[in-house]
Amino acid sequence: MTARILVMPGDGVGPEICREAVRVLDTLATDHGLDIMLEEALVGGAAIDATGDPLPESSLEAARAADAVLFGAIGGPAWDDQPRDKRPESGLLRLRAELDLFANLRPAILYPQLAHVSALKRDIVAGLDIMIVRELTGGIYFGKPSGMHKNANGKREAFNTMRYDEGEISRIGRAAFDIARARGGRLCSVDKANVLDVSQLWRDVMNELGREYEDIELTHMYVDNAAMQLVRAPKQFDTVVTSNLFGDVLSDAAAMLTGSIGMLPSASMDANGKGLYEPVHGSAPDIAGQDVANPLAVILSVAMMLRYTLKRPDLAKKVENAVGYALDRGLRTRDIMDDEKQIASTQEMGGAIVDML
Amino acid sequence: MTARILVMPGDGVGPEICREAVRVLDTLATDHGLDIMLEEALVGGAAIDATGDPLPESSLEAARAADAVLFGAIGGPAWDDQPRDKRPESGLLRLRAELDLFANLRPAILYPQLAHVSALKRDIVAGLDIMIVRELTGGIYFGKPSGMHKNANGKREAFNTMRYDEGEISRIGRAAFDIARARGGRLCSVDKANVLDVSQLWRDVMNELGREYEDIELTHMYVDNAAMQLVRAPKQFDTVVTSNLFGDVLSDAAAMLTGSIGMLPSASMDANGKGLYEPVHGSAPDIAGQDVANPLAVILSVAMMLRYTLKRPDLAKKVENAVGYALDRGLRTRDIMDDEKQIASTQEMGGAIVDML
Ligand SMILES: CC(C)[C@H](C(=O)O)[C@@H](O)C(=O)O
Ligand SMILES: CC(C)[C@H](C(=O)O)[C@@H](O)C(=O)O
Repeated sequence: MTARILVMPGDGVGPEICREAVRVLDTLATDHGLDIMLEEALVGGAAIDATGDPLPESSLEAARAADAVLFGAIGGPAWDDQPRDKRPESGLLRLRAELDLFANLRPAILYPQLAHVSALKRDIVAGLDIMIVRELTGGIYFGKPSGMHKNANGKREAFNTMRYDEGEISRIGRAAFDIARARGGRLCSVDKANVLDVSQLWRDVMNELGREYEDIELTHMYVDNAAMQLVRAPKQFDTVVTSNLFGDVLSDAAAMLTGSIGMLPSASMDANGKGLYEPVHGSAPDIAGQDVANPLAVILSVAMMLRYTLKRPDLAKKVENAVGYALDRGLRTRDIMDDEKQIASTQEMGGAIVDML
Repeated sequence: MTARILVMPGDGVGPEICREAVRVLDTLATDHGLDIMLEEALVGGAAIDATGDPLPESSLEAARAADAVLFGAIGGPAWDDQPRDKRPESGLLRLRAELDLFANLRPAILYPQLAHVSALKRDIVAGLDIMIVRELTGGIYFGKPSGMHKNANGKREAFNTMRYDEGEISRIGRAAFDIARARGGRLCSVDKANVLDVSQLWRDVMNELGREYEDIELTHMYVDNAAMQLVRAPKQFDTVVTSNLFGDVLSDAAAMLTGSIGMLPSASMDANGKGLYEPVHGSAPDIAGQDVANPLAVILSVAMMLRYTLKRPDLAKKVENAVGYALDRGLRTRDIMDDEKQIASTQEMGGAIVDML
């Protein structure tokens, strides 16, 4: 059956990196029998400019109809002064909620060829390979009630609610235990159970699941300590599971440990194998349109799509290997450059991957 | 007037490191005319064991009567299975709330003598000197409503409320602007205003204050990006101001950048110069009672007390200089040891500081 893939390039460097990812997909279709159909839709600032809405109904419908979404990046200073629901970010948040993409997978991998770009000492990060599993459709991002108002003293007051029920926690927990089983067999659940009720429930449910997954070593860590341990000794982690907000912060810190967030993909999955795939990096408006952005994060997001939605682990491996070869051959976009290497533009890097497929 | 100082040693390594800090205070009293009176009170697990309450009424009264509190550390596996209000941590949280200690100052400084213990490359952290100002008595730590219950579907559900009013934000904002003015003149406010209403109010109020503090360069950063930037290029920061939860996570990450959290002090201040001073590190139950813990964080907390409550910057400098000399002379507790240096016990390190005063 032909798989429908929706490309949502978004803002900033989104369009130019997605172009390279599409070349990769086209090549897999032509040369390796991948049965796909590509469509494109507006999202983020580009959609605001065209329609006034960061996620127009037609884009949402197209995303609903698709088997997988390839997402570029969104946002930029042009839309920063808008009210929150008219900002590019809210398009992404609505898409996650509407498609029920509750499981966000964020690998933080250090490429041996790129150890020098990390801010951390080589022995601390060499071989780093962490998977952060972030809950993506609940918690304080979506909790009700929320709002801003004047209180009894006439002062402005604002609030958000961090809320989870056991169903939400156990479904992300199961996803994480399953991932840990396919990896190193160790799962660290991160919370703030010494302070927050919602974290206590999180911990209770993880412990209950732990009794079903007896082959997995489950540990717990407070979020402040996790932030420390990521800096001190990140290789102690295998799979990490955490809530929406904590995952936002920790996955970005973990990504930056590798020094090359231009290299890191992510997947946001629903319960049925549908996924939205996007680079961890943002829209980088300062370098947009200059053909210097690193397309490898979105190309590696295609690899995640091949593995998790399209069930073609063989082709996923092919793409990942091509990225490895490109690095071995010394090709470098600006963000991962060092002296003796060969500088490549966005299109040259994309072309190199395509050639090696 | 004689200043009243309450020592709350707490759990784990708390008592043994506080003993060294008390020797420092005694020496300043005897040899340098510091006019103080010392008392001691139970807190944390030690208080639970003695009275069933992590903050017994008598301890709270003593803390209320004191001009400053010197706090060791609390917690340990012995009390981990208790309900949250019977855990050591809740004693500290209540103390912060009851004394209205809203401004938590957490310097992250790299001692040049200790650059090798950082996990980060030397050029990334050399000279690091950040001050994180964390709001400490509001936000999701204390927001109501909060709790755990069964929802309409019979499922367990739990929630906490992240709440701030403009008064709470502007008082921590003013504290931070004042600190930035006494430092490098740059203030970075960290929030998640692209997602949270409460962060939008935070940002609005900071911007309003910014118009009063025109000499200070105010910038804003999202918390996920801040976690990244701390790892990538921490020296870009001077003073950082943020909410309770974000400050918990970011200040621990920042502390760990220095590689020596055994060296880092903190101050938690009310509006009138009263403060609670404590090391950033925890109770380290695994090494408690072995005379190996680093007493320098609590001794440097005494220096903060001298500066902020006792208004003796001269003596604060004396203590800080003594710590510098001890490091210069090659004295090292186990946590900051390297090969060519001289290992010192807790008491030897404390004694060395006392000798140099
Ligand atoms: C753009 C923003 C709303 C988003 C988030 O906070 O989830 C981003 O930071 C991310 O992590 O994907
Ligand atoms: C012990 C705990 C409640 C506390 C906090 O979260 O504030 C600690 O982590 C800290 O940062 O002082």
